[in-house]
Order: sequence, then structure tokens, then C-alpha cells
Amino acid sequence: MPDVITFGEAMVRLAPPSHRRLEQTRTLDITVGGAELDTAVGVARLGHSCSWVSRLTDNALGRLIANHAREAGVSTEACLWTPDDRVGLYFYEFGAAPRPPGVLYDRKDSAFANVRPGMFDWPRLLAGAKWFHITGITPAVGAKTADATREALEAARAVGVATSIDLNYRAKLWTPAEAGKCLGELVALCDYLITTREDIANVFGIEAPDHETAAARVAERFGLKSVALTLREGSLGWRNTLSAMLWHPGGILRTRSYEVEIVDRLGAGDSFAAGFIHGVLTHDLQKALDWGVAMSALKHTIPSDFAWVTREEVEALLGGAGMRVDR
Amino acid sequence: MPDVITFGEAMVRLAPPSHRRLEQTRTLDITVGGAELDTAVGVARLGHSCSWVSRLTDNALGRLIANHAREAGVSTEACLWTPDDRVGLYFYEFGAAPRPPGVLYDRKDSAFANVRPGMFDWPRLLAGAKWFHITGITPAVGAKTADATREALEAARAVGVATSIDLNYRAKLWTPAEAGKCLGELVALCDYLITTREDIANVFGIEAPDHETAAARVAERFGLKSVALTLREGSLGWRNTLSAMLWHPGGILRTRSYEVEIVDRLGAGDSFAAGFIHGVLTHDLQKALDWGVAMSALKHTIPSDFAWVTREEVEALLGGAGMRVDR
Amino acid sequence: MPDVITFGEAMVRLAPPSHRRLEQTRTLDITVGGAELDTAVGVARLGHSCSWVSRLTDNALGRLIANHAREAGVSTEACLWTPDDRVGLYFYEFGAAPRPPGVLYDRKDSAFANVRPGMFDWPRLLAGAKWFHITGITPAVGAKTADATREALEAARAVGVATSIDLNYRAKLWTPAEAGKCLGELVALCDYLITTREDIANVFGIEAPDHETAAARVAERFGLKSVALTLREGSLGWRNTLSAMLWHPGGILRTRSYEVEIVDRLGAGDSFAAGFIHGVLTHDLQKALDWGVAMSALKHTIPSDFAWVTREEVEALLGGAGMRVDR
Amino acid sequence: MPDVITFGEAMVRLAPPSHRRLEQTRTLDITVGGAELDTAVGVARLGHSCSWVSRLTDNALGRLIANHAREAGVSTEACLWTPDDRVGLYFYEFGAAPRPPGVLYDRKDSAFANVRPGMFDWPRLLAGAKWFHITGITPAVGAKTADATREALEAARAVGVATSIDLNYRAKLWTPAEAGKCLGELVALCDYLITTREDIANVFGIEAPDHETAAARVAERFGLKSVALTLREGSLGWRNTLSAMLWHPGGILRTRSYEVEIVDRLGAGDSFAAGFIHGVLTHDLQKALDWGVAMSALKHTIPSDFAWVTREEVEALLGGAGMRVDR
Amino acid sequence: MPDVITFGEAMVRLAPPSHRRLEQTRTLDITVGGAELDTAVGVARLGHSCSWVSRLTDNALGRLIANHAREAGVSTEACLWTPDDRVGLYFYEFGAAPRPPGVLYDRKDSAFANVRPGMFDWPRLLAGAKWFHITGITPAVGAKTADATREALEAARAVGVATSIDLNYRAKLWTPAEAGKCLGELVALCDYLITTREDIANVFGIEAPDHETAAARVAERFGLKSVALTLREGSLGWRNTLSAMLWHPGGILRTRSYEVEIVDRLGAGDSFAAGFIHGVLTHDLQKALDWGVAMSALKHTIPSDFAWVTREEVEALLGGAGMRVDR
Amino acid sequence: MPDVITFGEAMVRLAPPSHRRLEQTRTLDITVGGAELDTAVGVARLGHSCSWVSRLTDNALGRLIANHAREAGVSTEACLWTPDDRVGLYFYEFGAAPRPPGVLYDRKDSAFANVRPGMFDWPRLLAGAKWFHITGITPAVGAKTADATREALEAARAVGVATSIDLNYRAKLWTPAEAGKCLGELVALCDYLITTREDIANVFGIEAPDHETAAARVAERFGLKSVALTLREGSLGWRNTLSAMLWHPGGILRTRSYEVEIVDRLGAGDSFAAGFIHGVLTHDLQKALDWGVAMSALKHTIPSDFAWVTREEVEALLGGAGMRVDR
Repeated sequence: MPDVITFGEAMVRLAPPSHRRLEQTRTLDITVGGAELDTAVGVARLGHSCSWVSRLTDNALGRLIANHAREAGVSTEACLWTPDDRVGLYFYEFGAAPRPPGVLYDRKDSAFANVRPGMFDWPRLLAGAKWFHITGITPAVGAKTADATREALEAARAVGVATSIDLNYRAKLWTPAEAGKCLGELVALCDYLITTREDIANVFGIEAPDHETAAARVAERFGLKSVALTLREGSLGWRNTLSAMLWHPGGILRTRSYEVEIVDRLGAGDSFAAGFIHGVLTHDLQKALDWGVAMSALKHTIPSDFAWVTREEVEALLGGAGMRVDR
Repeated sequence: MPDVITFGEAMVRLAPPSHRRLEQTRTLDITVGGAELDTAVGVARLGHSCSWVSRLTDNALGRLIANHAREAGVSTEACLWTPDDRVGLYFYEFGAAPRPPGVLYDRKDSAFANVRPGMFDWPRLLAGAKWFHITGITPAVGAKTADATREALEAARAVGVATSIDLNYRAKLWTPAEAGKCLGELVALCDYLITTREDIANVFGIEAPDHETAAARVAERFGLKSVALTLREGSLGWRNTLSAMLWHPGGILRTRSYEVEIVDRLGAGDSFAAGFIHGVLTHDLQKALDWGVAMSALKHTIPSDFAWVTREEVEALLGGAGMRVDR
Repeated sequence: MPDVITFGEAMVRLAPPSHRRLEQTRTLDITVGGAELDTAVGVARLGHSCSWVSRLTDNALGRLIANHAREAGVSTEACLWTPDDRVGLYFYEFGAAPRPPGVLYDRKDSAFANVRPGMFDWPRLLAGAKWFHITGITPAVGAKTADATREALEAARAVGVATSIDLNYRAKLWTPAEAGKCLGELVALCDYLITTREDIANVFGIEAPDHETAAARVAERFGLKSVALTLREGSLGWRNTLSAMLWHPGGILRTRSYEVEIVDRLGAGDSFAAGFIHGVLTHDLQKALDWGVAMSALKHTIPSDFAWVTREEVEALLGGAGMRVDR
Repeated sequence: MPDVITFGEAMVRLAPPSHRRLEQTRTLDITVGGAELDTAVGVARLGHSCSWVSRLTDNALGRLIANHAREAGVSTEACLWTPDDRVGLYFYEFGAAPRPPGVLYDRKDSAFANVRPGMFDWPRLLAGAKWFHITGITPAVGAKTADATREALEAARAVGVATSIDLNYRAKLWTPAEAGKCLGELVALCDYLITTREDIANVFGIEAPDHETAAARVAERFGLKSVALTLREGSLGWRNTLSAMLWHPGGILRTRSYEVEIVDRLGAGDSFAAGFIHGVLTHDLQKALDWGVAMSALKHTIPSDFAWVTREEVEALLGGAGMRVDR
Repeated sequence: MPDVITFGEAMVRLAPPSHRRLEQTRTLDITVGGAELDTAVGVARLGHSCSWVSRLTDNALGRLIANHAREAGVSTEACLWTPDDRVGLYFYEFGAAPRPPGVLYDRKDSAFANVRPGMFDWPRLLAGAKWFHITGITPAVGAKTADATREALEAARAVGVATSIDLNYRAKLWTPAEAGKCLGELVALCDYLITTREDIANVFGIEAPDHETAAARVAERFGLKSVALTLREGSLGWRNTLSAMLWHPGGILRTRSYEVEIVDRLGAGDSFAAGFIHGVLTHDLQKALDWGVAMSALKHTIPSDFAWVTREEVEALLGGAGMRVDR
Repeated sequence: MPDVITFGEAMVRLAPPSHRRLEQTRTLDITVGGAELDTAVGVARLGHSCSWVSRLTDNALGRLIANHAREAGVSTEACLWTPDDRVGLYFYEFGAAPRPPGVLYDRKDSAFANVRPGMFDWPRLLAGAKWFHITGITPAVGAKTADATREALEAARAVGVATSIDLNYRAKLWTPAEAGKCLGELVALCDYLITTREDIANVFGIEAPDHETAAARVAERFGLKSVALTLREGSLGWRNTLSAMLWHPGGILRTRSYEVEIVDRLGAGDSFAAGFIHGVLTHDLQKALDWGVAMSALKHTIPSDFAWVTREEVEALLGGAGMRVDR
């Protein structure tokens, strides 16, 4: 029985190499990405048994997604397969200042978008698990996925599994008002919230003078055990400064900041969630925050949405290792 | 004003290199293909002004399709652009005996699938043209594309533009019965039919003892000026023998046969149509058949759906040039 | 509990693309291969739960091997990990007549070469399994791997698991005399033998006038349930004819022959074993032979040692599907 | 009839990927570049009909150049084709501090270098056009191209088409004295000058204490409507700060500055000209300067000499969009 | 002092991968080729010290040519370097039946084309050498290269170095009449001629009823020690049958024939020359012919103009090795 | 006779492109590296005859190493070839802050690791040479390579050849105590030491308050003519500041500092040694230091371990050239 379970959609990601624009490229690099799968991968790479729950079309692209998940150490045994629907895709263009990265989604009518309540036997899937994680994308991608997400969270609560949500507001999927209404109900079913101050304002209309207040107010509104905010500074595409802070009833926690050279920023937030879950499961909230930001910083340096790291590498970074080649 | 006009959908084609299966590849080669565009490209490469009429989503993928069409010499000025819908895709796996090539279509809800009658100003588009060409795919891809195709053919007939159709039955799009009913009406509006004996049997239920009879019967049923059949022999993936025959009221025409080493067989039939149209426009039915099969043979040797040849190269082949390097 | 278990070494395979020689290439394609893992992959692709038992160094290359195994559907939970030793490699040059393919092994002192009896808890690993498979490479790669292999076979026999061996004589690893002595003891512990007439002669000194006699004699000597021989004809690198025959106490079985266009011949024998095991587990010896040769034929068309096929594709081939594109 | 016409040479550009030196690379990326074509592409991408006038050898390389131009939206109908001469090439090495980028030209005896007055029917080509643009390279590449350029400018003047020149002094083509004499005559036929303070000093010997004075003096000497200077700061290869200023009789205009992460700096000046022309045609000199520097900044982030942007992307940048991924 | 010396031009070869046409490719593979350098490489790979005499422009492309020569084991110490002129290039398109391979030369005004008599100190360069080899291309590429070639041959004759010529008529460089006059004088200075019956007819107007007679007549006309003819059969691009025959005063020699799968046919004739020279230097004329055709057959299987083989591999082929993987 | 001789191991380097991790890559770029070969390449590129002395396995990988050395201008005539042992490999992962570059060595039991005293005829190899260079890696890679290194240094000393050592402490090969004992004896046989302050402390236990004191103390202890220290500043992976200082009996020398954008940092120290040797051979210690740091700065911008530069490029950098494209 896996310790950690995540639930959501993953897509085939198609990206031109070498900073090419989509219009000019003649080749695409093919990987797989999806917020909850990305987090599952991070958790698995850190040594936890982890299962990703999803729904996939039974063709070469659907199998490819499951193959990549297993390659990275994630169990796909709980996935449902359908001969219908299609596999979601997204096209990614890397950015360089002043040109932002671009994402062209082609995910309508995907197998996951047609997920409905009752499709998954949650009590069975959650038996023995320690943690259940989703993001705010899962309820937004299909007509019934919000209901299906609530069903899953309630099942997790019912058996005492810890629950977390990464808010991840997606303007291409719904309006702030729609998101606020739906996500409010879901966050209320969660123990841990991961988000940014900006999303707190967008989704819940909580405008606060500082990160601490924003986190405290949203925690209070939904009765959360902790609220972690990731902090990104910098206006460039290839270099940012990363850190994180966390509110919990006992006060405010912070991390050191990392100067990151950015190879690929997709999945960085999802890797934060992975480090966070690892930290809570093995240590405490301070370690969770530290591991979260270290995982996120490392993810920025790795192509694809997945954090191809080892636990030892993250520990070395947390232990202060520098950029010297180890020879 | 372009001499030749074709009407249909083109898609982004994504193919693993080096005979890889989709599940195992990490890169895809991106080109563009669609039967009527492929034919337009062939016609343009042979020196005719040619316009491709279609409907595209105004995003990077839609622009990419138009860019590739123009790169190959085809005008896209008559295309409609929409902010809605999506761009059709297909994934192509090259084959090797005994594994056949594979095509995974992902074309539902494309901009072209939503084409309806009345969208194109055919009298204006056809003014001054000499030839209008479609395939049996165009009426099959959307709910209203059959009506839109009939509208176009009738407009062409009305102004005396020569009309041709490549039957191209696609089992993934409709049943033989559906195809037979619809295509029967469309073929009746055409001067020239290009097809195979197998499709004649599938679509129109005409089982004949030989190619000649099959062609004659379908010509008779629909009142056609000629019926050209492409003939492929061989059970391998990398080597086939190609030729063609044609029925017309004056008798039967044939071509020499070509031993072809197959780099990429997609678009080979469409290139036959291009050579055929070129031949009729500039010579006669025998030349049309000869140019058709030569274009098709050459297309087999070229990656992508497009026939990147020159008129001089086709002439050299028709003139008997061998495989010696010209140094 | 997996149905099928295989035991052996896998290596990182490094191959120049596009028929380049090693000396001239500047890039290498990296995949994973090893006879027993290749078979496990084939078995898993056909829908059976399958576990590969091996020993790997815990570094990026060792993890890469396990990742690729899982990606292809094989469980690596039974693998042992060590911080010591190294990961075996081999460099592969594709051939073209009259230049044969080339394999440069660099596998000395690998983690698997240091496998010793007692390292694996076979009774636990084999509990509930239906089939245990090895090849003649496993006993040859290390000083104690022959003993470890015997230990595994005896454990399988003890609990009634079916056992098979692919003889796979490797002249770079041992002499015919050494192989004959060791493999004789191991074959005597097996139910099913897969091999070629040539290896029967090389390893066991059984020179027979024909395939049937060779198979019968080796079956008789070792008390085997069946002996399957793969038959390859042709002197080219890109094209061969494949078939197989089988001796069993009830007589001789044969298959149709396949004309194959060869993309990558490595792993083709291992895929035969996979199809054979599938056939015995689900049908009978005739089906085993048929599935074996169909799997092997398909494997020739796919880059890498793994047979990236689906059960449906093999069934289609067995059902007589041709090279036509399915559109 | 196209709105904008440019006149000059384009070459096949061959560049090693991944910062490799020419001596060590085994692959080259092939694109197309040439100052006036680059500008034409930028103008076309912003939505204007645009024709590029040139002379090309009728072989695969010459056709490739025309194909790329059409792919990017530029008309090549006005190009002349010759069976003689050769196609100009240049090899480009990307730089990294402290190693500057390298350009190895191989353009002697190209089809364009043999352009002579009288080859183009300028009155016909310019009929209905709004803008005619050249650079200081066109007159320098061949023995008679200076005369041919003057002929074109005079024809444009004669029919009231706006004329612009990007000074673009090339030390590998001529001496400052030669350039000064020739370009002085050509600039006097232009309305708009785009250049740098350094080129003003090099070519015309105008040493001024600041940008404003340099621009004013050159404007005065040649009777120009405006002089735009692009300003680049920074000593690195992957990061620069860009802005621009402009002198016109009514005063000095300036732009904001952009921090740019440099993927490919070739064509950046040509894209400035494209944005500038767009701005004048649709707005005013301030917008021309703003669009020029925004186009140039974006071009730095895109591989190849062409600015693969959309009008909407430039507008978003001018509107203050940041580096956030739009999801 | 090198044993074997060859004299001629080498060019940078630029070839689209994967059978792409030049017009459609976005990458080129860069290697080096030139008949006399190709032969030098073959001779060096077989273990002889070998020097290639040429003239190169001192830029990155010229150095690249010399680098590749040295990489393959050929000495470039005798090459002259000039800051002037340019480096010859050629673009190569692989063929597939019925499309022949294509070569687009861009070699005018190269450093070698400007070679004149007196540039090389032949007595010094030839001191101690055993063999001097040229082809019929060397005298054809420049205005004075014929004179320079004669100078070299006379110097070789003067010191008793064996001389050979591969006739290699190039229709793109001169007419048969021009070639016949010039090459007649040069062949008369040679001991060994390598050619085809077709070139004997083209260049010397010797039409003979069979290979034997053609070889005998040309040998007689020019007083040659032997005339070797390479024989190619087959009308495909990926498969040919190769053999060779030789006339010498003692009679006719023949070789076995090889079925070759063709990866890259360029340089195959040059590799024949290399094997031939090796054979004469180490054995006799029969071995020379055998090694020549074996080297040529192997070259067909290797990308680039160079025969990346080892002496052991050629010996194995001559010894009857088949296509089995050596494991 | 070569002017400069270096002695050590080179390995095949296998690196994933585009910042991929080893576990996720499907292709590897193959180059060659090894400290003493890297230095030999730099020296050869600056125009000196240079021989690299090593021991290689006679297979495709061993030949590949020698080929690459010759390609870069280094003589491999003094290398020994053996049919035994294996070729050392290393896998390199590029870094990005905060992820350091990674090196996975697989060099055990290589042909060089089995080097023993008496294998090389040093008096003959060193005859006529001006300089002999090693690093602290050579004595560490094998059981007897320390003795073999001492033998070589003593032979160089005996004939008055200048000797230099780059300390290059490798923690993966030996402990500081082991290194200190062995390297102390070797440094005492050298004229010139190149190292870092950190290695001086690690290896010799010399903790000094500043660079100058560290250099002076180690110089004094071993009686050195000079001690050069390379100085690297910065905590990022893609950008550092480089300079160098040198102690000699006459005082302290320094260089300007370079801001470097890092493409590939491997071999940068080895290129410093190359520039240093060039400087001493042609100028003086100040030039040696200047050329050393300029070579090192340029090496950072070039993929692979080799400094693919020309003497003219280094001179231009030393002369103050900026990042402008030379057009």
C-alpha cells in the first residue's frame, strides 16, 4: 500500500528544444507533466511509496504517460483506462527575458476531464495511506472533476489520511469567482495549503499587507494546520531567487533563499509540494518548508516537469553544498 | 488568381524518428500533412499557382500549418482563421515488415471539422481557376463538411472549373455505407476520379474481376471523364512496386512500373493526384498518368507528406534517369 | 506476486545512431538491454505481471536500468542494490551487409557479476509465481553466478514453478567446454529449452543431420518437456526470414515464416522467449511457438532491446494483418 | 501590391548548435538570414504585406532561401532567378563571454553580388507601395550593387514611397572611406536613418559628444526626417540592456530599456527596423521607436535571424507584461 | 617519411540526415570528403603511414578539413595554408530508388583550385615514399592544377615511386574531350589505373565489347602495369552487388562479388583504391583487387566518405565472415 | 621531435545534452578528456608540437581517444597499445545553481591504470623536448602509476627538460595524506607548480592567511621556480570571475580578471596549464600567467574538455577585444 497518493491529470508535454518558438521548430521533446503526477514523482524520488490516481486513454499516448510515471518510481496501478476520449497535450515554449515562457494547452475532452464521482474506489485506494494530495487544477479540468475531487477528499478525511492542496489557480480554466467558490469548499477539507500570496488574493479575495497576514487569514478562514507560501523574486527568465515561508498556529517559519539558474521552471511548485510532504512525513514543518524549497530550487535546474533528484542530493544542498564539481 | 485550388484539412504531423515507437521516443519530428494540401504542394512544386482553402485556429500550431504550406509554394490567402476550436494532430509511426505503419489521429473538434456551408465565398475563390480538387476525407471530418464540400463542387461546376476527387476512404471516419452514400453524390459532381480498386469495392460495392472493369463501372455509374487507379505491389514496408492505369472513354492507359525504396509513404497518393492534375493541365491523360505515378514514386523517397521535388527531377525520371550520382 | 520471474544482468546500451561506427560518432543513443530483462519486458507487454531479479549499483546508471525496466512494465522490487561494483555497459554498432553488427562489452566487475549464492531469498521471491526464466548468459558472467543460477533453478523446481532456459552461448564469456559442463547441469533443471541448432552443437557437441533430430537429442539427454529452435535465413543485415520449430514428446510443431525488415535485431531471441512463455501460460505449445516467432519478428522492427508492442498488435499479426496503414 | 518592400541579399546560415565551435561540430543548424529579408520578415509578422526583392541562384539552396522567406510571410514573387552564380553562405558561432560570436562569410560571387542596375523593374515593383527599405550592406556586396541600390532609391523617391536605410557598416566588405562616400549618396535619398553612434562616426567621420548630437548632425547633413539610434549596454554575451533614442526636427524621443537574455543576437537590428517601419506606418515616431526596440528585444530571445513573434506578443510586451507563464 | 602520398582537394561535406532533401532540412551533418583524401584515409586505416598533400584556407573550415584528416590517421604536414581563397563545399542528398543521390558542388575559387606548379617541393615530399596516388579530379578543379599534377607525377616517376590514378571523370568539371586530352598525358605517367569501363569509353573513346577488352586496350595505349575495373550491378539505391576485375600483362584477375546494403556510397571508389594500394604494397595484384573490393564494399556501409574500418575487419571479410553478431 | 610532452590518462566522456540528468537522458554526447591530454591540446592549438604519452586499449574506444587527440593536433605516436584492460569512461552532468555539475567516473582497470615503470622509453621520448607536464592525477590512477610518474620526471630532469605539475587533487582517488606523501616527492622534481590555495592546504597541510603566502610556502618547501594559483569567484554555475596570481622568487604577478559565461568548465584548469607553458616557452612568467588565464577563460565557453581556440583568438582577447560580432 503506497504511503502517498495524488489525484489529477497528466498530459503529454511537447516542447521545442533550444529556445525555439513552436512555429519555427522541426522537432519537439516529449515528456510528461501534470501537477499531481509531478508531486508524486518528487515524493517517490525521495524514497516514499507513491501512487498516482488518474484516468487515461488506452492508446500509445496514454501508455506513454503511465510509462513515464513508472519510470520515475510512481505506481500507476490505480489508474483507470478507457478506450474513449483523448490524451491531453500541452506545448511549451521556453522563455528568455523579455519573452515569457508560453504554454499552449490542448486538453479538452481528455480522459481525465471526463472523470466523474464514483469512478474510483477511494476507500480501497486510501487504505493504509498516510497522505493524499491534490491541486486546484483537478477540480477545474472537467465538468464533474470538482465533485470527484470532493469525493476523494472526504474519503481521505474519513479514514484520517492527511490532506494537502496546492491552490494553483489557472486562469485558462476558470474565473476567480468560480475557483473561489469551488476551492473554498475543497480547502476546507484539507490540512495543509500550499500557494502564493497572489493566488490567495485572486481566488479568495484576501488582500493582505504582507505574506504573513495573507497566510494567517486564509488559514483562519479554512481551519488549516499550516499555509506555506513559495516566494519568487526576479524579473528574468534564466535566474530567480527562491525561498518560502509558512504560517502555522505556532508562528511563522522561513527558509534560506536560493539563487537559481533556470533550465526549466515547469513543475517547480509541484516539487515544492513533494519536498513539503516528505518533510512533514519524516520530520516537522520547518524541515517540510526547507525540503520544499530545496526540491523546488533543484527542479528549476532539470529539464521536464519531473524532479530527477535523489534524496542524497537534496540533503547535500540542505547541508550547504556549493557548485564545486565533486571529483 | 491561382490555377489550381484544393479544399480540405491539414494537420500537424508528429512522428518519432528512426523507426521508434511512440511509447519509446523522446523526440518527435514535426511536419504538416493533409491530403488536399499535399496535392496542392505537389502542384505548386511543378510550377502552377495553387491555393489551398481551409480553416485554421489562430494559434502557433495553426500558423505553423500555414507557414509550411507557404514554404512549399502554396497560397494560404483563402484560409479562414478562427480563435476557437483546436488544431488537428496526427502521430505517425513508420513501419517495417511485418509491423505496419501506424497513424494515431487526434483531429476531433478541429477548426476544419467545424466548417459549414456558407463559410467560403466560392465564386470569388474560384474565379479564374482551372482546377478544383478534393478527397473523400473532406466530407468525412465534420458534421457539416459534406455539405460544405458539395457547395464547393457545385460552385466549381457552375463556372466550368475542372473537378477531381481522390476517393481516399478512411475507415476511422465513417462506415462504407456512409461513405458510399455521401461520396456517390460528390463523385457525380466531378470530372476525374483517382482511387484504388479496393476503395471502389469498399465504398461503392463494385466488385470487379479486374482493375479495368472496376474503373469502367465506376466511371459509368458517375459519368466520369476518367478513372485513374494507383497500383501498389509488394508486402514489405521499405520496398514496393508502383504503377497506375486509367480508364477513359477512349480506352485503357498504363504506365511503366517503378521499384521504390520507401522512406515515407504518407502523401504518396496525394502526390499522384498532383502529377495527374499537372499532366492534364499541360498535356493529356497519358502524361497525367505518367506524371502521377512518377510523382508518387518520388514522394516515397522523401520524408514528410510533401513531395519536395522539382519539375526537372520528375522530367528526368520520366526520361529514364537511373540511380547514378550526377557529378 | 508476479506470475513470471526472470533472473540475469542488464546493461546500459550505448549505440551510435544512423549506422555510424563508434570511432566516428559524436552521439550515442542510450537504452538498456539484457537477455532476461528483455524477456521480462516482452512478457509484461503481453499483460503478465513480471519481476526481474538482478543486482545493481546504486548510482545514476544503475537507477537508469531500473527506471527503464519499470517504464516497460517490469517490477524491479526484487533487485538488490549495492554501493560497490560498477554498472555493465555495452556499445552496439548496427550492421549493413557485408559488415556485421558489432558488440563491444564492458561488463567486467559489474554488480551482477559479483552475485553469489545466498544473496536472493528465492523461496520468498518465487512464492506464487508460475514461471522462472534464465538464459545461458547468467551463469557465465561472474565467478559465482553459475552457482547462484543453480540455486535459483532448484528453488523454482522445489515449489513447482515452470522453468525455462534460452541457451544463448556467448563465446566472449566462456569456451564451449566450460559452457557445456555448466549449462548441462542447468538445462537438466529446466522444463523448456529455447535455442538454435548451432548452439546445441557448440555447447553440447550434438551434431545432428537436421533441426528435428538436434532438438530431439538434446531433449532426450536432459529430459525436457520441449525444445524450441528459432530459424533465421538470409545473409543480409536489413532483411531476414524468420520462423521456428519445436520438438515435444508428441511430435514436431512449426510456424509460418516472416519476412522481416530489420531495424534492430538485438533482443529478438529474448522476445521469442517472451512470446513462448506467454503462449504456454495462456494456450499451448503451438501457440507458444507462434507467439514466440511473432514477437521476435516484431522486435526486429523496433529500436532498442525491448519489444515495445501490445498484445493487440501481436494478435493482429498472428491474424494475418498486412503492411497497410490503418487509417 | 505589398505595402513594404525591402531589397538586399539573404544567405544560407549554418550554425553549430550548443555553443560548439565550427571546428568541433558535426552538425549545423540551417536557417536563412540577410538584413533586408530579416526586416521584411519582421514587418510581415506584424501584419503588413511585404515583398523582398533579391536575386537567387536556381538550385536547392536558392530555393531554400525563398522557401524560408515565404514561410515567414514574405512575398518572393519579385525575386529574380538565375542558373548562374552561387548562393551566399555564412557560418555563425554563438559566443559566450569573453568569447565573441563569430561570423565566417562565404558570399563572394553570389547571385546577388552580381546584381546590376536595370535588372529590376522598380516602377512596377514599387507601384502602390508605402515603404522601401535597404541597409548599407546592399551597396557593398557587389561591384554594381551600389548603382543598383541608387537606382531603386531614386525610383522610390520618384513615386513618393517612404525610404529608410539601416547604415549597418560592415568592415569585412569595405573601408570606412568607401562606405562613407557611397552611403552618403544613398542616405541623402532616404527619409529615415537607423544606425548607431559608432557607425555614424565610422562611416561619416562625425564624432559627437553624445548620442543626441551625433544623430542631429547626421540628420542635418543628409536632410533626414529622423535618425534612430539603437543603444546596447553590457559586456556579456548572454545578457544586455537595450533601448533606443531618436532625433527628429521636433526633438528627442526615448524608450524604456529592456533587460534581455540573449539566445541569438543576429537580426536584432533588422527587427528594430521592422518595428520602426510598423510604428511609422500605423502610429507615429514615438511608437515607431517603442515598437523597434521591443521587436529587437524579443528577437534576441529567438534562434535564427527572423523575429518569430506575433503582433499581440509585441503589444503585450509594450503593455508591460512580465515573465510569468500565462496558464 | 610516409609510405603513401596522395594529392588533391578535400571539401567540407554537408548532408541532410534521414534522407531529407536539402530544401526541407533544418540540420546538416558535417564531414569531409575528397577523392585523394578518402584514399589516404583508407590506406592509413590499413596501417600504412600516409600523407595527404593539398592546399587549404586558414580558417575554421580549412582547419576542420585538416583535423578530420588527422583524426582518421592521415598526415597533413605537407599541406599548404593560405589566408586567401575559400574552402570548397559540397552538399549531398542521399538517394532512394527511383530518386538518385544528389551532389551540389560549391567548390569554385577554392584554395586548391588555385594550386599552381611550383607550389610544392615534390622531391622533398616524395623522398622515401613508396606510392603516389591521384585521381582525374585533381587536374580538373583549377586552371593550373593539371600542370601541377603533371609536375607531381613526373617527380614521382623521377625517383621511382609507384604511381596510380583513379580516372574519376567528372562531367560537372570538364568535357570528355578536355578530360581525354589531359588525362591521357597523366595516365601515361602512371603505373596503375583504376576506373570503370564507362569512364574508359567516355574519356578515351575506347568502346569495347567487354570489360576485359576495355581494360586491355587502355593498358596498351598508355603502357600500364595493370588496369582495375570496379563493377557495380543493380538499379536500387540501398542495395547493389559489387565486384572487380583487373587486366595485367599476365592475364585477367577477378574477385568474388559482395551483396552490399548501402548506407553511404560516397568514397566507395576511393576506398577501392586504398585497398588496392595496400594489396600491391603488401602482397600482389590478386590481393590488391580483393582488398580493393572488400574495402569498397565495407565503405558502402559507413556514413561519410571515409572508410572507418580496421585491417582486422577487412581480413575477416576476406576470410568469409558473415553477418552474425560476434558476442 | 615534439617540444612539449604530457603524460597521463584520457577517458571517453559521455555527457547528456541540454542539462539533462543521466537518469533521464536518451542520448549522450561523446568527447574525450583527461587532464594531461587537455593540456597537450591547448599547447598544440597555440602552435607548439606536442606529444601525449599514454597507454590505450586497442579497441574502438581506445582508437577514438587517439583519433580525437590527433584531430586536435596532438601526436599520439608515443602511446602504447594493449589488447587487454579497458578504456576509462566518465559521465558528466552539467550543473545549474544550486545543482553542481556531476562526474561519475568509471575508470577502474583501465589500460592506463595498469601502467608500470619501465613501460616507456623516456630518454628516447624526451630527446629534444623542451617541456614535460603531468598532473597529480597521473600518480593516483593506478597501483604503479606513481612510480611510473617519478621515473618520467627523473628522466626529464636528467636531460634538462623543464617540468611542471598541476596538483589537481582528486578526493575520489586517494586521501589527502596519501596524496601529500606522493605528490610531495613529485613536486620536488618539478620546476613549475600550478594549483589552487585549497589544494595546497588539502594536500600539503599548508594553511596560509592569503594566496601569496600559500604560494610562497609551497614554493619554498619544494624549491620551485614559480607557483601559479588560479582564482575563481562566484557561486553560480553559468557565470564566474576568473583570474590568476603567481609567486616567483622575484615577487608576485597578477592578471586582469575575466567575467566568464560558462558553457563547459571541464578542462579549464588544464587549459590554464597550456597557456602557461606557451607563455614560458615564448615570453616570460607574466605572459605565462596572462595566457594561462585567457586560455582558461576561453575554455569555459567551449563544449568538451578541449580548448578549441586559435592563437589569434587568445591574442585578441589579451589585446582587449570585446563581445562585438566581427562583421
